[in-house]
Amino acid sequence: MQLFKKSANKIKVMALGGLNEVGKNMTVIEYKDEIIVIDAGLSFPDDDMLGVDIVIPDITYLIKNRDKIKGIFITHGHEDHIGALPYILKKINVPVYGSKLSIGLIQVKLKEHKLNNVKLNVTTPRQIIKLDHMDVEFIRNNHSIPDACSIAVHTDQGIIYHTGDFKIDLTPIDGDVMDMHRICELSKKGILLMLADSTNAERPGSTLSEKTVGLGLYDLFRKAENNRIIVATFASNIHRLQQIINAAERFGRKVAVSGRSMVNVVGVASELGYLDVPENMLIDLNDLHRYEDSEVVIITTGSQGEPMSALARMASSDHKKVEIRNGDFIIISAHPIPGNEKLISKVINCLFEKGAEVVYDEVDIHVSGHAKQEELKLIHRLARPKFFMPAHGEYRMLKKHAELAEELGMPSQNIFVNKTGDVLEIDRNSAKVTGTIQTGNVLVDGLGVGDVGNIVLRDRKHLSEDGLMIVVVTISKEEGRVLAGPDIISRGFVYVRESEDLMDGAKNVIKDVLRDCEDKNIKEWAYLKNSIKENLKEYLYQRTKRNPMILPIIMEV
Amino acid sequence: MQLFKKSANKIKVMALGGLNEVGKNMTVIEYKDEIIVIDAGLSFPDDDMLGVDIVIPDITYLIKNRDKIKGIFITHGHEDHIGALPYILKKINVPVYGSKLSIGLIQVKLKEHKLNNVKLNVTTPRQIIKLDHMDVEFIRNNHSIPDACSIAVHTDQGIIYHTGDFKIDLTPIDGDVMDMHRICELSKKGILLMLADSTNAERPGSTLSEKTVGLGLYDLFRKAENNRIIVATFASNIHRLQQIINAAERFGRKVAVSGRSMVNVVGVASELGYLDVPENMLIDLNDLHRYEDSEVVIITTGSQGEPMSALARMASSDHKKVEIRNGDFIIISAHPIPGNEKLISKVINCLFEKGAEVVYDEVDIHVSGHAKQEELKLIHRLARPKFFMPAHGEYRMLKKHAELAEELGMPSQNIFVNKTGDVLEIDRNSAKVTGTIQTGNVLVDGLGVGDVGNIVLRDRKHLSEDGLMIVVVTISKEEGRVLAGPDIISRGFVYVRESEDLMDGAKNVIKDVLRDCEDKNIKEWAYLKNSIKENLKEYLYQRTKRNPMILPIIMEV
Repeated sequence: MQLFKKSANKIKVMALGGLNEVGKNMTVIEYKDEIIVIDAGLSFPDDDMLGVDIVIPDITYLIKNRDKIKGIFITHGHEDHIGALPYILKKINVPVYGSKLSIGLIQVKLKEHKLNNVKLNVTTPRQIIKLDHMDVEFIRNNHSIPDACSIAVHTDQGIIYHTGDFKIDLTPIDGDVMDMHRICELSKKGILLMLADSTNAERPGSTLSEKTVGLGLYDLFRKAENNRIIVATFASNIHRLQQIINAAERFGRKVAVSGRSMVNVVGVASELGYLDVPENMLIDLNDLHRYEDSEVVIITTGSQGEPMSALARMASSDHKKVEIRNGDFIIISAHPIPGNEKLISKVINCLFEKGAEVVYDEVDIHVSGHAKQEELKLIHRLARPKFFMPAHGEYRMLKKHAELAEELGMPSQNIFVNKTGDVLEIDRNSAKVTGTIQTGNVLVDGLGVGDVGNIVLRDRKHLSEDGLMIVVVTISKEEGRVLAGPDIISRGFVYVRESEDLMDGAKNVIKDVLRDCEDKNIKEWAYLKNSIKENLKEYLYQRTKRNPMILPIIMEV
Repeated sequence: MQLFKKSANKIKVMALGGLNEVGKNMTVIEYKDEIIVIDAGLSFPDDDMLGVDIVIPDITYLIKNRDKIKGIFITHGHEDHIGALPYILKKINVPVYGSKLSIGLIQVKLKEHKLNNVKLNVTTPRQIIKLDHMDVEFIRNNHSIPDACSIAVHTDQGIIYHTGDFKIDLTPIDGDVMDMHRICELSKKGILLMLADSTNAERPGSTLSEKTVGLGLYDLFRKAENNRIIVATFASNIHRLQQIINAAERFGRKVAVSGRSMVNVVGVASELGYLDVPENMLIDLNDLHRYEDSEVVIITTGSQGEPMSALARMASSDHKKVEIRNGDFIIISAHPIPGNEKLISKVINCLFEKGAEVVYDEVDIHVSGHAKQEELKLIHRLARPKFFMPAHGEYRMLKKHAELAEELGMPSQNIFVNKTGDVLEIDRNSAKVTGTIQTGNVLVDGLGVGDVGNIVLRDRKHLSEDGLMIVVVTISKEEGRVLAGPDIISRGFVYVRESEDLMDGAKNVIKDVLRDCEDKNIKEWAYLKNSIKENLKEYLYQRTKRNPMILPIIMEV
């Protein structure tokens, strides 16, 4: 019984995503018979996940333990923290807690998924949700979306403090500085474990205040006095939107909004009071022609060059309402997310070709939402946790963050650079990784959640590289005689019309195999199929150095 | 006749690649009945060119005018300047001119392609190849490969000066500074048109000397005194290799080389005297175990994270001879080429996970090979051309370079931001784009050159996103009765075993269509196929929100 009791006082901390990756953030904390979940994010597919729309965490563990789950606590409303919610809530309908803006954005999402029986709870900073063994407290922080929070979990073993995505902005747009006072109070009580955002752990210095971007925008608006101005940024960066609107107001310009998510966010954020838009400032895209170029700003999605985004459509003359003209002044107020560099570059080139001036990649038109090394050091000094686990980031970021913590004097055995699925068991005296739980990527493709796996992806990759060749033959069941075919159909392999010779050769290879089988009176279709496949593969590789997928089909009549 | 005469004195300058793109550099200069070609480069496929190996220029124009071509003049031995040569020489066998190293690297390439009847001519700086109407002069410049040259074409209308890829390195490793004296002499004679490398036209300042990297390497070698050191860089950057070898010598380390292209280049460069390797310094990878970690350096390919490269294989424990160990010190001496960021990141994370220290993305372990704004200004001031055409780079780079030229006082009408295929006609008094010639991308996939085009790529894309579904039915010719099938085969669409219900539904849809056709006695197979396709598409999209490629096949018996 001693053993059981001991283990009963251990808190388990497990990430279902967000470690060794950027995105798909989800952390599970389990104590006694209670489980709480922090965030439920998605990530975007890697290049080798062909055709996949989004990736969500494998929540097998949560489904198995659904009765213990008290709720999902959301730190902020970014996709990598809320994007998996609709899929997860379909499996486990538990209450969701979050700030007003987070819940507002979640509502839009759930509505799209026709989920209307979820219990959503709006929380305010310093509010504590009392559970049986854990009390969950929201603590204001700063990030590239308003109303972002850290989360502190109070237990009788000590406090677990999860920073969430954060930076420390001493001059934030809404005036709400990260609640360092509360962190100091918690520290005094004793923070047992800190999980902290490692996204920028490789970067020295401090992240600049969002306010600096406002000054950069003013300068550019002044410079582009007589031109139409188009600003592309992340829809969720509402403080950025506010600063664009402020600049527009200062220079007497109307604002039009383009892009579905931008329109959504401007709607939700204005309604909930996070965006202060002067009366009569917003105009419809259809009314742009009524104004001089110097009288308007268009705020648009597409800062990452996404091919279907509004800015990309403008760049390729595919936007129904906005045509890029000579003299347009375009500000891309964002940094490329790794992997998007070429997409953005393509859009920028197209915009330039249309005669627009494009400002991008400049220091004072974008700042990060994540703490850099000096801010991380500060949070470590304030929180003074006993144990530490870097959270959110690729391995190299987690590693650097761990090194940083060591530099600050933490013993290395108190630092846990974990993988998703690792179970960290912790009590007031000790912490240890004791095992792993099932977790991983669940791929979402259209309506299918998890029905695209390795085999399907392997086939898609094969098809994408060399296409396919289908061989159909109809054979009489009794005599084993070829009644029709072989017919060959290829797709994604070669221009068939220019390769008649190759196709004739392929047909001859198949005919030889068929004749051989007829002669030998072989009626085992598996053998025949395999023989066609092997011979054809050899022939095609010899002739083309390509390996299309070969699909032999035998129809028995 | 007057008209003809006039036009007879015009020089035509046309790019077949390298404008509005990075790579595939190829410029054609035509005067009277003579054509010379400068460079014959390849580019690497865009993300949407699925399965394509490399991209080369469309040389239809050269094939049509093959009798006029006097030679291909190579500025330097990088793939984006020589990579298309084997393919082009198979179509038009003309003499090739280039520096000793360029020709050495070309020889390796031609050997691989079993081309042994090409006339290769080694040229030296300031050497002039005399043709009937054009004299072609090689002029030493600096770049990230030794023995790089600019090219000046002397005509009775004036000089056309093509910088080639260049930077101005005042302390180059081999001591050979760009031949600015010769450029001044040419300028005095009168440079009619300058084509200049715009790759770094967006970057202020000057590119650092290659020598600075040597100092950075020394510092790191000192820091990693007791560790095994692995340095990844571009194989062709022989000066970089020299500096790594120098550092190895200074710290008493042996050098092992990994990666096919690295082994090739070290061989060719040592043989031709471009790489000075102390005796007994090179060791075989197989002998690594005979040395202490502190006694060796491994030079490897893979600085761009290329999945099949030596470094990537080391990172994924897939390298036969090198296993990454705790404490290994790895230097990535290169910047990511746009598009490769995620690949490199993946490799770095794997190396970190294996306990290695990885140094990357630091200023003093890599420098660019291309001139930045201050160097470009200098070359404009030295050359003082009458007309100017930015060369080599995406549109935005060409544009910035043009702006730079204007800032220096060139009239904007004398600057030509051209597209590939544009024909710039020029004589001593005037220059004008007068038309275009056929050009574009020729895709190379395996042995196929140009047999993969838009339709094949579109199919590959379609297949890669949602896979395919094949429907086969055997029908009796006379009665129109279904004899066998419908059979359904799918690949890359869904896990079939977990989607039996979906497949049964699909079969029923097809059966309905077949029955309907039987009832109506329709024997037009095109109609039947189309009907199956439409109905199945609708059904599958409803059920899955996916659009696999649907291939109905009717076998007539």
